[in-house]
Amino acid sequence: MIRHVVMFRWKEGVDDAHVRATAEALNALPDQIPEILSYTCGPDLGVADTNFDFAVSAQFDGIDEFVTYRDHPAHQAVVQTLIGPFVDERCAVQFSER
Amino acid sequence: MIRHVVMFRWKEGVDDAHVRATAEALNALPDQIPEILSYTCGPDLGVADTNFDFAVSAQFDGIDEFVTYRDHPAHQAVVQTLIGPFVDERCAVQFSER
Repeated sequence: MIRHVVMFRWKEGVDDAHVRATAEALNALPDQIPEILSYTCGPDLGVADTNFDFAVSAQFDGIDEFVTYRDHPAHQAVVQTLIGPFVDERCAVQFSER
Repeated sequence: MIRHVVMFRWKEGVDDAHVRATAEALNALPDQIPEILSYTCGPDLGVADTNFDFAVSAQFDGIDEFVTYRDHPAHQAVVQTLIGPFVDERCAVQFSER
């Protein structure tokens, strides 16, 4: 099993409504992409000033299943309409879970 | 419940033995810090060139329990000896999980 984690910093001016819409669109993906084993996301809680603004944490059986998710039209639609144009910085890791 | 995710880019020259030692030290924390509900970490699998090098994903009941972990001497020992001096970039988010 692998875990995929990704974080964003939003561009200046991205508002709470946009963040909520993004979380809603992302949370709808598990119903559309059966390769997703678990999926959570949400805005940063503000514990540290240096934190990024938003994160996704998801599990897949392996890299092939992650790639299916990454390239899935339902995921790409969210990336291209709600994330890509609104994100300043992004960082991601996929790692093996025991 | 909240999820804490953090990623690092290692400084140039950090070798596999160091990464393994860091993962081992981090994976020993749940036995020492009862506030940790779940804890996984590991090196990036290399799916994307732009990825960071290493990530941790953990769950806590709430922010107070996360802060207990963050400031716990066992965690701080790992941060100060195996992570801080060897890390070039770091990004983190804590978010609410339903």
